[in-house]
Amino acid sequence: MPSIVIAQGGGPTAVINQTLCGAITAARRHDPSLRILGARYGVRGLTAGDVVDLSDIGDADLLRLGHTPNSALGSTRDKPDPKACEAILAALERLEARAFVYIGGNDTAGTLELLRRHSSGPCAFVHAPKTIDNDLVENDHVPGFISAATFVANAFVSMDLDFRAMPGIYVAIVMGRHAGFLTAAASAWQRTPDDAPHLVYTPEKPFSVRQFLDDVAAVQDRLGRCIVSMSEGVQDEDGRPLAEALAAGALERDAHGNVQLTGGDLGIEIQKALKSRFPKARARVDTLGYLPRGYLGVIDATDRKEAFAAGEFAAQSAFLGSGSVVLHHDGLHTEPRIVPLSHVAGKTRHMPEAFFAGSNAVSDEGRRYFGRLLPRRPDIFTPFV
Amino acid sequence: MPSIVIAQGGGPTAVINQTLCGAITAARRHDPSLRILGARYGVRGLTAGDVVDLSDIGDADLLRLGHTPNSALGSTRDKPDPKACEAILAALERLEARAFVYIGGNDTAGTLELLRRHSSGPCAFVHAPKTIDNDLVENDHVPGFISAATFVANAFVSMDLDFRAMPGIYVAIVMGRHAGFLTAAASAWQRTPDDAPHLVYTPEKPFSVRQFLDDVAAVQDRLGRCIVSMSEGVQDEDGRPLAEALAAGALERDAHGNVQLTGGDLGIEIQKALKSRFPKARARVDTLGYLPRGYLGVIDATDRKEAFAAGEFAAQSAFLGSGSVVLHHDGLHTEPRIVPLSHVAGKTRHMPEAFFAGSNAVSDEGRRYFGRLLPRRPDIFTPFV
Repeated sequence: MPSIVIAQGGGPTAVINQTLCGAITAARRHDPSLRILGARYGVRGLTAGDVVDLSDIGDADLLRLGHTPNSALGSTRDKPDPKACEAILAALERLEARAFVYIGGNDTAGTLELLRRHSSGPCAFVHAPKTIDNDLVENDHVPGFISAATFVANAFVSMDLDFRAMPGIYVAIVMGRHAGFLTAAASAWQRTPDDAPHLVYTPEKPFSVRQFLDDVAAVQDRLGRCIVSMSEGVQDEDGRPLAEALAAGALERDAHGNVQLTGGDLGIEIQKALKSRFPKARARVDTLGYLPRGYLGVIDATDRKEAFAAGEFAAQSAFLGSGSVVLHHDGLHTEPRIVPLSHVAGKTRHMPEAFFAGSNAVSDEGRRYFGRLLPRRPDIFTPFV
Repeated sequence: MPSIVIAQGGGPTAVINQTLCGAITAARRHDPSLRILGARYGVRGLTAGDVVDLSDIGDADLLRLGHTPNSALGSTRDKPDPKACEAILAALERLEARAFVYIGGNDTAGTLELLRRHSSGPCAFVHAPKTIDNDLVENDHVPGFISAATFVANAFVSMDLDFRAMPGIYVAIVMGRHAGFLTAAASAWQRTPDDAPHLVYTPEKPFSVRQFLDDVAAVQDRLGRCIVSMSEGVQDEDGRPLAEALAAGALERDAHGNVQLTGGDLGIEIQKALKSRFPKARARVDTLGYLPRGYLGVIDATDRKEAFAAGEFAAQSAFLGSGSVVLHHDGLHTEPRIVPLSHVAGKTRHMPEAFFAGSNAVSDEGRRYFGRLLPRRPDIFTPFV
């Protein structure tokens, strides 16, 4: 019996299961007799024959699934080599797959493009986008980003109020290996230069600890407090990640060659540097870590809807051929479209230059972009201090 | 003109301004001619003559103030010595204060008891409770705790789902120097032993890294993943905080003699220990840090109401005499009552023995307690993995 196979790859998001729900819904609508299969742990489940039948999932379960963060099918960071490709294609053939919808980031799109090139069968390969890093080219923004960014924006309003109450220096280290979108989203709700974040460091701009300390000193002098958003992927002048320089020999890389950053070590080094330069100040470094990426307490309604629509569109498109679903924005509406897999596969979208104001701040244009995506800033009382 | 003076002390919470709003509302109701003054940065503002007039604050501002987390008046960790006491009492006399309402934890109650004993004037000293640590004696629970605990409970449901999708070991280090309530609240929404947190380490039970690693190995063997809630204040057999042992000579203490824990160093050491014992596992340690304590995105409605009621009751009580407001629970309702300051001042409430199951888990009774306080567990779909 013909089937459509769905899987989830890479790091989870708060709304990745909405995309799964959207794909199930569209597939069912297209052809009620189609078997809908989910591969557990991404392509790993395909080669292991580890699939679950999603054809008969009820409406109530579908609703609950959509509201549950993090990949319900399980995920993987495996990157198939040519031999693994053959095994995956053979598995898809055994399952009589007409389409393989793989929900993930640019590495996931890369895996699909590899499969498409190796395949000679009738199966279409469609990439449905998700990533909290917002780093997929051709997308205005990516499902999963808005929820993560809203988590971060809330954190920075909160920390600004915390450090008004008891002055000092606060640094939050935010996920994002190559692209600074999530780190810069800290400024989405910033109204004036006195609002946090006072300094923003992303992987797109060279970072030096010495300059950072001077920047902090200048803000401290002006405001008596300094709140910093720093990407875990900040790099030195030579493009070497600071965390990598710190970790020296003891590096781990995943199958895609990505260095596994923990942020934690970076946090400790930044804490030490602050302590040495500002021995008397209250200085605190927190690594937000995994919290923003699939946090149950902060799931954005727009993000939910767009993630669902991306999954729906991916399954619909799959009956026409391979491609990558992208979110297009025309200045008014955001809608899914399809582009060739090769346009997205393995590429990284960086923050546009226009989103920066110098090397340590977000421009008005950048803030307008984040402000357009996120919900309205909560109506906060300006403290007496 | 007679006045009531209000101040905020210690670390902020998500609802500490509700208590301020409650006190303002009750004071105004009691005597519309009374001047309502706020001291900036706690008792520090009193001695410096740094007060703001809150008498005419409008209803719309009061509403926004209540919904804004973290101490809007500013805060302090200063502990007045006898000389500072004299200066504070002189300041209160100059302000013709009939009452001084100080919102804070057990150190704040201690400051008030000191002032009361030194005072010979007409001013009453009333402590309004707040702390995310939930460690005030005579209280069923303390305003600020429910919101922080809800943040933590959400984090643990999320991380459980994250590590189902990609198996591994996750440790979140949670605030709480002496009492494990916030760390243990991670288990509020746990339904079965398979749900996170699988291990809980609080300051009340001796901690050893070796035992911790064995515990993790056992959970890993059983479930293929292990999610741990660990207090930043875990202590060894001799009652020495692990973070203190790690930090060795380089310790900071605040004016109350409290060691300043960052949690970060503890996190790095735990990460190293996991890496060495489980070299192949995905292992991640995040320090939740300041996030849970005043997070704009997760403010509980019950916590808001109870914090307001505590402030209201504090101001009402102030016209009858000194004391500490406590939240009493009769099995059905939670209501504020007043007790002598000395009952609460400087004392720490630990987790009751009945809340523990062994040294690394929360008992059913403990979970029932947290479950009673927190909102209902979100209706989560059980993943396919």
